[in-house]
Amino acid sequence: MTAFVALMAHERETQALGAIAGRLGWDQETMMPPGAAAQRGEEMAAIEGVLHARHTDPRIADWLAAALAPDAAGAANLRLIRRRFDRASRVPAALAAEIARVTSLAQGVWARARQAEDVAAFLPTLAHVTRLRREEGAALAQGGDPYDALVDGFEPGMTSAALGGMLGALRPRLVALRERLRAAPPAPALQGDFPEAGQLEMARRVAAAFGYDLARGRIDKAVHPFSSGGGNDVRITTRTNPDDPFNCIYSTIHEVGHAAYEQAVDQAYLFTPVGSGVSMGVHESQSRIYENQLGRSRAFTGWLYGQMRAVFGDFGIADADTFYRVVNRVDDNPIRTEADEVQYNLHILMRFDLEQALMRGDLAVAELESAWNDRFLADFGFAVTCPSRGVLQDVHWPVGLFGYFPTYALGNVYAGCLHAALRRAVPELDADLAQGDTSGATGWLRDNLQRHGGLQTPRDTVARAIGAMPDEAPLLDYVEAKFADIYPL
Amino acid sequence: MTAFVALMAHERETQALGAIAGRLGWDQETMMPPGAAAQRGEEMAAIEGVLHARHTDPRIADWLAAALAPDAAGAANLRLIRRRFDRASRVPAALAAEIARVTSLAQGVWARARQAEDVAAFLPTLAHVTRLRREEGAALAQGGDPYDALVDGFEPGMTSAALGGMLGALRPRLVALRERLRAAPPAPALQGDFPEAGQLEMARRVAAAFGYDLARGRIDKAVHPFSSGGGNDVRITTRTNPDDPFNCIYSTIHEVGHAAYEQAVDQAYLFTPVGSGVSMGVHESQSRIYENQLGRSRAFTGWLYGQMRAVFGDFGIADADTFYRVVNRVDDNPIRTEADEVQYNLHILMRFDLEQALMRGDLAVAELESAWNDRFLADFGFAVTCPSRGVLQDVHWPVGLFGYFPTYALGNVYAGCLHAALRRAVPELDADLAQGDTSGATGWLRDNLQRHGGLQTPRDTVARAIGAMPDEAPLLDYVEAKFADIYPL
Repeated sequence: MTAFVALMAHERETQALGAIAGRLGWDQETMMPPGAAAQRGEEMAAIEGVLHARHTDPRIADWLAAALAPDAAGAANLRLIRRRFDRASRVPAALAAEIARVTSLAQGVWARARQAEDVAAFLPTLAHVTRLRREEGAALAQGGDPYDALVDGFEPGMTSAALGGMLGALRPRLVALRERLRAAPPAPALQGDFPEAGQLEMARRVAAAFGYDLARGRIDKAVHPFSSGGGNDVRITTRTNPDDPFNCIYSTIHEVGHAAYEQAVDQAYLFTPVGSGVSMGVHESQSRIYENQLGRSRAFTGWLYGQMRAVFGDFGIADADTFYRVVNRVDDNPIRTEADEVQYNLHILMRFDLEQALMRGDLAVAELESAWNDRFLADFGFAVTCPSRGVLQDVHWPVGLFGYFPTYALGNVYAGCLHAALRRAVPELDADLAQGDTSGATGWLRDNLQRHGGLQTPRDTVARAIGAMPDEAPLLDYVEAKFADIYPL
Repeated sequence: MTAFVALMAHERETQALGAIAGRLGWDQETMMPPGAAAQRGEEMAAIEGVLHARHTDPRIADWLAAALAPDAAGAANLRLIRRRFDRASRVPAALAAEIARVTSLAQGVWARARQAEDVAAFLPTLAHVTRLRREEGAALAQGGDPYDALVDGFEPGMTSAALGGMLGALRPRLVALRERLRAAPPAPALQGDFPEAGQLEMARRVAAAFGYDLARGRIDKAVHPFSSGGGNDVRITTRTNPDDPFNCIYSTIHEVGHAAYEQAVDQAYLFTPVGSGVSMGVHESQSRIYENQLGRSRAFTGWLYGQMRAVFGDFGIADADTFYRVVNRVDDNPIRTEADEVQYNLHILMRFDLEQALMRGDLAVAELESAWNDRFLADFGFAVTCPSRGVLQDVHWPVGLFGYFPTYALGNVYAGCLHAALRRAVPELDADLAQGDTSGATGWLRDNLQRHGGLQTPRDTVARAIGAMPDEAPLLDYVEAKFADIYPL
């Protein structure tokens, strides 16, 4: 048996065990009885221990030294295995274990602090988590920038400098657009009561419209919408809020974007590192283009309006044009996950700056809340009213996910590029979307991006699909044109 | 760190990983999308490989040689770990892997053969499975009896000779009773249509009545009812048949018996070998006493009749006495899982004899169907009409579970003993059951048997609860008295 064959056989089992750990996480959020939490923590620790031991198995170094890749997918797999082995080997086992333990407990501390609107109760834990991640970043960076090393964990090859350039360029035009829209007459808002059964029916309809294959997936309810799994078992969750059916509908389309990407990766790559979405940023580009550029388009909302009338009856919106403006309403909302296409990236830019300051020691944990509130007022023009709608709103920092937020904005930038290329490639797109037919769009994404999985770097994956290096201009052009139409001067 | 502490730390992780494999099995039967089957097979193989490597880790022999148990639970854990290590080490890894592979595929072959009523299509696979299990039994027995070695895997310490004595003694009195009942006027049968929602509501009501803790469990639908998990995460499944609500109700009570046992084991034993039900036979004693001696009692069916009228309205049964006779109706039914209390053990005795003949080479696989049909006619007085209602009805042999069937009858014998002791200990039992209150019975079982988990051998576990060595007389006395009352001469 050659070194390559031995390595890939080992990797195949590792991937299968990783899939099991992922499925267990899904179970925890959807099916697990409440009394099982402590027991489940011990189970998760056991499987994570098995995975860590496999990721750092010393035989991997020997196999990698001797392995010859038979083809491009093999070469990409060697590259990805080497990358994971190097990263896992740099972090001392004791530090990795402490991070796992502390971040697992931190989630509960954060949830209670958020519930009680008590930032101070959470600060000691946040300080601990921040210090551990800084240590981890330093161990990973080996003399380089610790924050960049964390970013690289979510978006291989990306740096804070490159992100800063790309995302920083979004800021002036988005702020200018936002100011203009705040001065315009507000768009109409949705009112009424939308029963859960109808919302779940809408979730199934939009999932089907976007080509989510339920023979290889399923939809359940959970506190937070997410997508989980790979290959032929990719599951999504959704949630319902009686006042706001759009939350259910658009979070479903968003998660279908993630799930469709995983379902579309070439089956020949199953149980290998190449067989998954290539990065968080590229993943987010798929969820975002499904949700926004397609799902919130004038054409698709025309179809959606008819579907909602079929399910809910008359819900007080007179026509499809008004419905389109309701769906894309821009208002003062401090919650990132509920933000419109204009303001969403401003939320991310703020978090990106604050987390870099935290990681680099330029901002003390004790000063985070006031820094957040000051920056929020400056960027959004209104004040944060309480921590749960401010600095305590997101789970990311509590569980130590520093370097994760910027991939959301990067995903939006990539979605802007992909959308421009898609419009060129599929000129009849709006006519199809108006019938609820997304197959032209999703087929183009599948053929040009999704099926390749991790064959190339994240940036090259997007570049291959659009035929150029990605930049922020198409996203800005799209947002400005769209909202100038919705909010005419 | 002492050898005992090191061994138990290793074992704790092994138990947690075993729990994960069990949860994955549950997912497969309840939640998994159909397209994920092949992928899941690879995941199951990966976790089973991890477990097998841990079960046979050579360090276990060293730890066992040096370990000193600090208490009775520690001593029991050492005994159980040694037993598993010895058994796992005796079976060559290649044989274990081939058994896993062949039995996994055999289930599909059997399902298709059963669907097509085509015994011949299944014979080559059955011959292969039988040969592999015979080899495994020989490896385990090390010169002893291979079939006994397989029985010992399900019921530690039990032999075919001991089972033959105990179960063989059931036969004359059960056959005599059965003959008498066949000659009696038949009991009334249930008729009508019972909607699924009502059946699932009944499942929740009986589960609550029998003390199933849904904060540490859940009920889902599956093709076959089963119980899965341990400690604070024990889940059951049920199924519905529009013609036959008793299938749903009594399979739920049965699985609640299994689940309640696991939920009741002392929490101090969690993630150790002592922390689970001690054997298949003792487990079945709990499911059977819940289902039959309690659930099909005159007192409890009085309460159940009122519940069913509340859920389904008038369903054509005039009074509680008639309802009791309907629930306990004895008729000609070739299906084991639908058998009444009189005939169930006759099904088991037949399988016990046939599987011993198969394993010992006294019966060729090619002759199994005719041997089955002959024996069935002789024992039950009517002929098998088709293989799916005959030799192909059960999944056990197809997946190689030789030695498993007799634990069902053993469980019934144990349930008979426990019921007699319970009646002595809780004289007001019928008054409670008539109110749907099982707490006196389930509390007695919990305190006297369930909480001890695997602290003692299976037989000693029952003996401790009843204050004597178990035998078959109480079961026979109970069945004869019950059915003499239902079918008076």
